[in-house]
Amino acid sequence: MGRPRRKRSGGRDAKQALRKQSQAQVAAFVERGIPYYQLMDEASLALIEHNADTVLEEIGIDFRDDPEALQLLGDAGASVDGERVRFPRGLCRSLIRASAPAEYTQHARNPQRNVIIGGKRTVMAPAYGPPFVRCLDQGRRYASIEDFRNFVKLTYMSDSLHHSGGTVCEPVDLPVNKRHLDMVYSHIKYSDKPFMGSVTLPERAQDTVDMAKIVFGSEFVQQNTVITSLINANSPMSYDATMLGAAKVYARNNQATVISPFILAGAMAPVTAAGAVTQILAEALAGMAFIQVVRPGAPVVFGTFSSSISMQSGAPTFGTPEPSLVLYVAAMLARRLGVPFRSGGGLCGSKIPDAQAAYESANTLQTAALAGVNFMLHTAGWLEGGLAMGYEKFIMDADQAAMIAVMLQGVDLSENGQAMDALREVGPGSHFLGCAHTQANFADAFYTSSIADNNSFEKWLEEGSLDAGSRANTIWKKMLQDYQAPPLDPATDEALLAFIEQRKSAFPDRNY
Amino acid sequence: MGRPRRKRSGGRDAKQALRKQSQAQVAAFVERGIPYYQLMDEASLALIEHNADTVLEEIGIDFRDDPEALQLLGDAGASVDGERVRFPRGLCRSLIRASAPAEYTQHARNPQRNVIIGGKRTVMAPAYGPPFVRCLDQGRRYASIEDFRNFVKLTYMSDSLHHSGGTVCEPVDLPVNKRHLDMVYSHIKYSDKPFMGSVTLPERAQDTVDMAKIVFGSEFVQQNTVITSLINANSPMSYDATMLGAAKVYARNNQATVISPFILAGAMAPVTAAGAVTQILAEALAGMAFIQVVRPGAPVVFGTFSSSISMQSGAPTFGTPEPSLVLYVAAMLARRLGVPFRSGGGLCGSKIPDAQAAYESANTLQTAALAGVNFMLHTAGWLEGGLAMGYEKFIMDADQAAMIAVMLQGVDLSENGQAMDALREVGPGSHFLGCAHTQANFADAFYTSSIADNNSFEKWLEEGSLDAGSRANTIWKKMLQDYQAPPLDPATDEALLAFIEQRKSAFPDRNY
Repeated sequence: MGRPRRKRSGGRDAKQALRKQSQAQVAAFVERGIPYYQLMDEASLALIEHNADTVLEEIGIDFRDDPEALQLLGDAGASVDGERVRFPRGLCRSLIRASAPAEYTQHARNPQRNVIIGGKRTVMAPAYGPPFVRCLDQGRRYASIEDFRNFVKLTYMSDSLHHSGGTVCEPVDLPVNKRHLDMVYSHIKYSDKPFMGSVTLPERAQDTVDMAKIVFGSEFVQQNTVITSLINANSPMSYDATMLGAAKVYARNNQATVISPFILAGAMAPVTAAGAVTQILAEALAGMAFIQVVRPGAPVVFGTFSSSISMQSGAPTFGTPEPSLVLYVAAMLARRLGVPFRSGGGLCGSKIPDAQAAYESANTLQTAALAGVNFMLHTAGWLEGGLAMGYEKFIMDADQAAMIAVMLQGVDLSENGQAMDALREVGPGSHFLGCAHTQANFADAFYTSSIADNNSFEKWLEEGSLDAGSRANTIWKKMLQDYQAPPLDPATDEALLAFIEQRKSAFPDRNY
Repeated sequence: MGRPRRKRSGGRDAKQALRKQSQAQVAAFVERGIPYYQLMDEASLALIEHNADTVLEEIGIDFRDDPEALQLLGDAGASVDGERVRFPRGLCRSLIRASAPAEYTQHARNPQRNVIIGGKRTVMAPAYGPPFVRCLDQGRRYASIEDFRNFVKLTYMSDSLHHSGGTVCEPVDLPVNKRHLDMVYSHIKYSDKPFMGSVTLPERAQDTVDMAKIVFGSEFVQQNTVITSLINANSPMSYDATMLGAAKVYARNNQATVISPFILAGAMAPVTAAGAVTQILAEALAGMAFIQVVRPGAPVVFGTFSSSISMQSGAPTFGTPEPSLVLYVAAMLARRLGVPFRSGGGLCGSKIPDAQAAYESANTLQTAALAGVNFMLHTAGWLEGGLAMGYEKFIMDADQAAMIAVMLQGVDLSENGQAMDALREVGPGSHFLGCAHTQANFADAFYTSSIADNNSFEKWLEEGSLDAGSRANTIWKKMLQDYQAPPLDPATDEALLAFIEQRKSAFPDRNY
């Protein structure tokens, strides 16, 4: 059985040592050097919080088909009426504040890839959930486990993505009741970055935990967080038994959950930004309080997935201004609560990696970055409102994610950064190309995009007048060709495969 | 001769009345309802300001081939050594603070289109300067006066663009020494939005002023600003006689100038963000101080055009993180100085309106919006580092500009915005599609993009699997078909044409 090469890095010194070590190589996550964008003033935020408490107190949240959840919440002071749970004003907040950590380390099997989620960090993960994939060569088709492995590999090779994610695409060629085993195995086998667990049934969550124990050791898993999993609310204002069941498994095993209201404003929430964010806060408070009641101290993340719908067709829309406003406010509310915050990255509605996809994704990525998202799910690959994972889109978004990491570092105000010597050396009317300061800094001075073509028009013509999609197509193919798996202890690998074999043979294949 | 239908709107009441009137129709400009993004703290900004003063005091700025400029600056307290002008610490700042207005109204021939530049307003204008145009049908070709007219018409029809701009493309089919007359005429004839003037020679600036006098009346022009023109510095740290000459013409006629350091960091400025912004501030301070010396009180805008270069090819790059950092800081410096701020909008390096173009443009637009740009030049159409004006790109960018206008309005916290009644009406597990609040608000709830396709995959297939560029192609053609010129007093039109005829016949055609 594998063992992590590094002990729990709870202490500040350990974290600092880890950070130093990571930065010498590839940064394991982004440390923010610039302020958050503060969209709203204190009084307005307090109004939203007051309204969310009103929702929790007067309207309440449904916890469905889970008598244990109702019992636990009733014992914690909530008022339970059937499946409707009403929370006295401030109860959720105080339950969360009493025990939820402000940040947590999610361990990876390679400790240099450990991420800290919360505070001034941003951890970026690929898109989650698409049943289809798209590439320039084959167009759109159902995703397979091979696609899943490909996206794990591409994420592993992308320095700007810190986290292997979860359902990077849905491997629909495998039976529904067994595919989670292959997904979790792929994250472990083909990457050494941290990953997400299955949430489609409590026993699948337990399988995820059991596989993690094979990799990290049982004791280590009980004491440390090695899985972060996505728990969506059934917005508006309800949680279902599947999600609650999976959440309980993870919480009881000290593993992290991202409690995410899933909002298409106009359908699952009011059409106004203030109304939508009020509901988001209420739902997130109830879900996170529930986790703290299940196991005080279990890491929990304030999640949001917020979009609008087209009031013409009812279809979800992305990259528009209203969800950006919601996101800026939600991030501020999470900070006031003192928990990590999750939102989406490169969201778009376009079917293909065209200008629509790019405008929408850039708008969402910029907003997430400035808002201060700690765990940025859907950073790369997302197309078609999440229905498709795009190979070319993935490469483009990963490039954007790398730019955002640079932006978040901010302005270097060291003497070298101030560049007064360069200004003195060059003076009026000359140029800086050859000056000592430029020579000393040029290698790292500017982010160099992997897909942007900045050549002359003539050179671009000569090279075939390619668009960004075509260039990205070449890149992902080359990456998959060059891929080399990170080493995995053979005994661990064998134990994982034996576990999977045993679990698979215990049940017939099912597609639900 | 035409007369403006409205008197100078200097007073607060007049402005408020104007604003009310404008908002009842299409907003003449954006009034910001959200905070600026404050990237840097006070101490860091003070450090940049100190360094800029050091540049002005020790290194100095060249004012070339303009003895009058040297004389004026010397008289104002600067130290003149040949063409090198050094400014005692704080001199530029105090000259600017003493007389430069914090904001100004640029009058349009239709007073409902008057814009206020400065403060919490954002005024958006199309791209400026491209010698080429590109459309899907014909690819890339040299721009003509017909293209120029087309972009004036498209801008006139785009509600998200408040300003007709200047050299929306370079009509290279007309002689260099006469084309400014056709450009200014096109802005006046085919639009009623405010416009920019020629800066390629002082006499062409004077022609612009003279044509404005025909439209607005001489006395009105002397008392009001009806032209805003772009004065680029010859970075690093110099101004040439052409720009100084044009700037003097405009300033002496009380017309506005945008003093813009033109920075490709690594070539015209240091490679570091702090170094580049220090130089930008020094150059802008010197240029704006010069304007205030020429005519105290003439409106002046702190401009920036900031990009990086590829350290491999030397080509300019756009939409990358470093210029965003520069822009955020420059906007804060302009506010501290108390003058309006100008920067670019949808900048990109891509040759075509693909994903590269869109990512880069969105990154720049978002930054400009959050930084608090008052006059956003190059908002729409820009391709290929400014070498080409794109018809499809224009439509896409104008759509993004409209989204930014919505975002800048911020979150509605009225009772309707809070939507507590909707939350109470719908409750857990239902949906908001049919509730009273949604019905009452759905028409205005969400920005509806003109080019995004948010239909189902199947519908999109059925409709031909179009990309955003193809949809934009249909839109601009339809707009040009539907274009109707705003009324122009026939006597004014005749007078303008007579003036142009007289000026054109006074000189032989020249291509310089």
